[in-house]
Amino acid sequence: MKIKHNYTMMTDFYELTMANGYFEAGKKDEICYFDVFYRTIPDQAGYAICAGLEQVIDYIKDLHFDEEDIEFLRSKNYFSEGFLEYLSDFKFKGDIYAMPEGTPIFPNEPFMIVRGNAIEAQFIETFVLSELNHQTLIATKTNRIVRAAQGRAISEFGARRAHGAEAAILGARAAYIAGCNSTSNTQTDLTYHVPSSGTMAHSWIQMFGDELEAFKQYCRIYPDNALLLVDTYDVLKSGVPNAIKAFNEVLLPLGKRPKGIRLDSGDIAYLSKKCRQLLDKAGFEDCKIFASNSLDENIIRDLLYQGAKLDAFGVGERLITSKSNPVFDGVYKLAAVEDKDGNIIPRIKISENVGKITTPHFKKVYRFFSKDNHKAEADLLSVYNEELDFSKPFELFDPIATWKRKTLEDYEVVELLKPIFINGELVYDLPTIEEIRSYCAEQVESLWDEVKRFENPHNYYVDLTQKLWDIKQQLLMAKRK
Amino acid sequence: MKIKHNYTMMTDFYELTMANGYFEAGKKDEICYFDVFYRTIPDQAGYAICAGLEQVIDYIKDLHFDEEDIEFLRSKNYFSEGFLEYLSDFKFKGDIYAMPEGTPIFPNEPFMIVRGNAIEAQFIETFVLSELNHQTLIATKTNRIVRAAQGRAISEFGARRAHGAEAAILGARAAYIAGCNSTSNTQTDLTYHVPSSGTMAHSWIQMFGDELEAFKQYCRIYPDNALLLVDTYDVLKSGVPNAIKAFNEVLLPLGKRPKGIRLDSGDIAYLSKKCRQLLDKAGFEDCKIFASNSLDENIIRDLLYQGAKLDAFGVGERLITSKSNPVFDGVYKLAAVEDKDGNIIPRIKISENVGKITTPHFKKVYRFFSKDNHKAEADLLSVYNEELDFSKPFELFDPIATWKRKTLEDYEVVELLKPIFINGELVYDLPTIEEIRSYCAEQVESLWDEVKRFENPHNYYVDLTQKLWDIKQQLLMAKRK
Repeated sequence: MKIKHNYTMMTDFYELTMANGYFEAGKKDEICYFDVFYRTIPDQAGYAICAGLEQVIDYIKDLHFDEEDIEFLRSKNYFSEGFLEYLSDFKFKGDIYAMPEGTPIFPNEPFMIVRGNAIEAQFIETFVLSELNHQTLIATKTNRIVRAAQGRAISEFGARRAHGAEAAILGARAAYIAGCNSTSNTQTDLTYHVPSSGTMAHSWIQMFGDELEAFKQYCRIYPDNALLLVDTYDVLKSGVPNAIKAFNEVLLPLGKRPKGIRLDSGDIAYLSKKCRQLLDKAGFEDCKIFASNSLDENIIRDLLYQGAKLDAFGVGERLITSKSNPVFDGVYKLAAVEDKDGNIIPRIKISENVGKITTPHFKKVYRFFSKDNHKAEADLLSVYNEELDFSKPFELFDPIATWKRKTLEDYEVVELLKPIFINGELVYDLPTIEEIRSYCAEQVESLWDEVKRFENPHNYYVDLTQKLWDIKQQLLMAKRK
Repeated sequence: MKIKHNYTMMTDFYELTMANGYFEAGKKDEICYFDVFYRTIPDQAGYAICAGLEQVIDYIKDLHFDEEDIEFLRSKNYFSEGFLEYLSDFKFKGDIYAMPEGTPIFPNEPFMIVRGNAIEAQFIETFVLSELNHQTLIATKTNRIVRAAQGRAISEFGARRAHGAEAAILGARAAYIAGCNSTSNTQTDLTYHVPSSGTMAHSWIQMFGDELEAFKQYCRIYPDNALLLVDTYDVLKSGVPNAIKAFNEVLLPLGKRPKGIRLDSGDIAYLSKKCRQLLDKAGFEDCKIFASNSLDENIIRDLLYQGAKLDAFGVGERLITSKSNPVFDGVYKLAAVEDKDGNIIPRIKISENVGKITTPHFKKVYRFFSKDNHKAEADLLSVYNEELDFSKPFELFDPIATWKRKTLEDYEVVELLKPIFINGELVYDLPTIEEIRSYCAEQVESLWDEVKRFENPHNYYVDLTQKLWDIKQQLLMAKRK
């Protein structure tokens, strides 16, 4: 039984009961605004990296209910015939604004805003969150791992431990955006043009029985890509000596140089130093040493701190599942509705958990960069139609500790949310994967080191304009009965 | 750009470099045997629940390279034309044996065995692991959560926090197998016949502005499914009083009873008791109380320990990502090859990490059940063609602590690995999802409580026959140079 891949039906059932409810209650044409934002940064880091927009675009373009879907929904005995008829030529005709993939994002600011009628805007919640949460999670984790490696290459190879095939494929896409150099996942290369690579598993050596013979065969077949896995039996007594023999006996006569060896078990820090000595002594100073085996940003930092002689890393399960923090908590919350005259009425959600109170209204998000060093200084949320004067010094204040004020001078401002769909039409030029990856690297470069550090990073400022702050306070007070 | 969904290309690139290597080294027709097994039980539990076989079957049936795939592979400049031609009419023609979905599985025993030529048997590794690891992970986690609820219903509703759409859909399938009662995921219902359900989000209440009006509308539209979310503003001052009003004013005149209320924030244990009092006092003793909000088996156990008045649970992110342990470490290891005369030659993989040493040979797996209470006593791995006499008492011994012996009397034996594909033909009658779910419940019932407890469970016995143990020792000694 194959999954239908327009994913229209990949939706929480309550999106449908609510949609039918809006239809029946005469509210289907009411316009509403939903914010997609998140609350906590994975791994107590200083920022996240958003990703997944391209897949949301694919989904929106293809969103429709076919006859099988309608028939299925009819069989549930929840929905009116009028509603089912409505669904049968349903299309998304609303607006979507979003930050480009690869943008560093911070808690409690929308990185996507959806404006549409009550049915369409509510309905897409489940897929949108699932997709953005997944790829943002993996991009965020990957960027930590990439930075820990301090310029050394990271290959993503977690497919076998991902949450299924699609999570593997799209996780590898997100990983590349956030700075990985390659993936093991062939389909991610085919579909998304992320460079794939790979050499051998332990089974290659086992199949030949004899390690030296296995290495020589590999060097013969792939003289330009001789990267040998040296830990099947014993790294120092067998693996590296056999690798050196294979390099000498097969590669050198062909005028080729080895690409590297890979360590996948044991004491990597110790072994890497010993391997380096053996390789150097044999005249293979150019032969790189790759490491794998349950690596993440913490182990990589620790390996480098110990002076491990490593040139590149293969990272699997801890990247592709973001193992230390496998949930990205993006949410989709109503921020405003329009009245019959098209006036935008802000809406707030109170909660017994204070952290779950929302910032109301249709908003814009600005990022301030210092003009002299192009470092990002703060983000600012405003009401959508506020006139802000960015030609002179601008005073920001903390929305919680409101006495904390900061005046920015000599800055540039970028509006982060770009129009993606307007009236259901795609108006966004999709960047290539290489463009997204470069943009991500630039944007991360623009963050202060204090925001990027691994432990106890500085809290980046996400502030509200006075007007937006006032509206939020008024709504809070009004609900406090 | 859409992902190709036969998933043939969802493979680690090294499966292809090795396949081309076997082709070039004249080893493509050598028959080999791979075991799929795992090493560590998630959450330090006593067992895992295998799942994902049905999707592996779909994959194997549809495995083929189309022209676009071949063209792509040609462009990589790694593969010989002979090999690319071979791939162009490649099909899986080997054998697969597997434990039925829903079977409790234990570390270091194969729950799937693949026999095939070097290319086909190696090639399918990535997809097979990715699929089995994912669904087994979610089934295993879910079974803990279901048991913690002590008979109360569990609804899976983690789609928005899953690792993308497919992980959500198939995760919900695995969750149902392992005992969930329903899912929020509409597509899992459509495709896999898992009952879907759902009612309202906070946005429903926000859309009406007025909570009472929102509740009354819902009761009017869904009089048979009135389950109201009561924490949008204030549970005890607003949510429950308004729910009671809506029940009284809308449901009772229609001769209907409420289904329930849902708590999604705040102090659930405390609130549930207060809600119970309010509902009972209003004459709604039959109105159930549902809880959600970052639940898992530990929080549910703690809620019940506190005497929370809860009838059912909605479980999201911590189930659908197995948050406390988001990786299932299933591996795919060469266990044997056939020589030119068809003799099966066992193969072992040594490792610097002792836990990574494999158990060689083509094997069978037996489970012993006590005849009087039908409890599972131990599993036994044997060489595939061993004659074992199960008509008399059977002595088992621990493969590590070999002096530990146990003689079983009055037992029944079940061979756990079933033929799925033979010579590439599907020979397995796929059970329905309800059959899998019932089988899983029965099998979990057959485990001793000591294996099932949440903290420090008993280690279930997975033993080797003397013959298999001897072969493993011989291979270990032979490699120890």
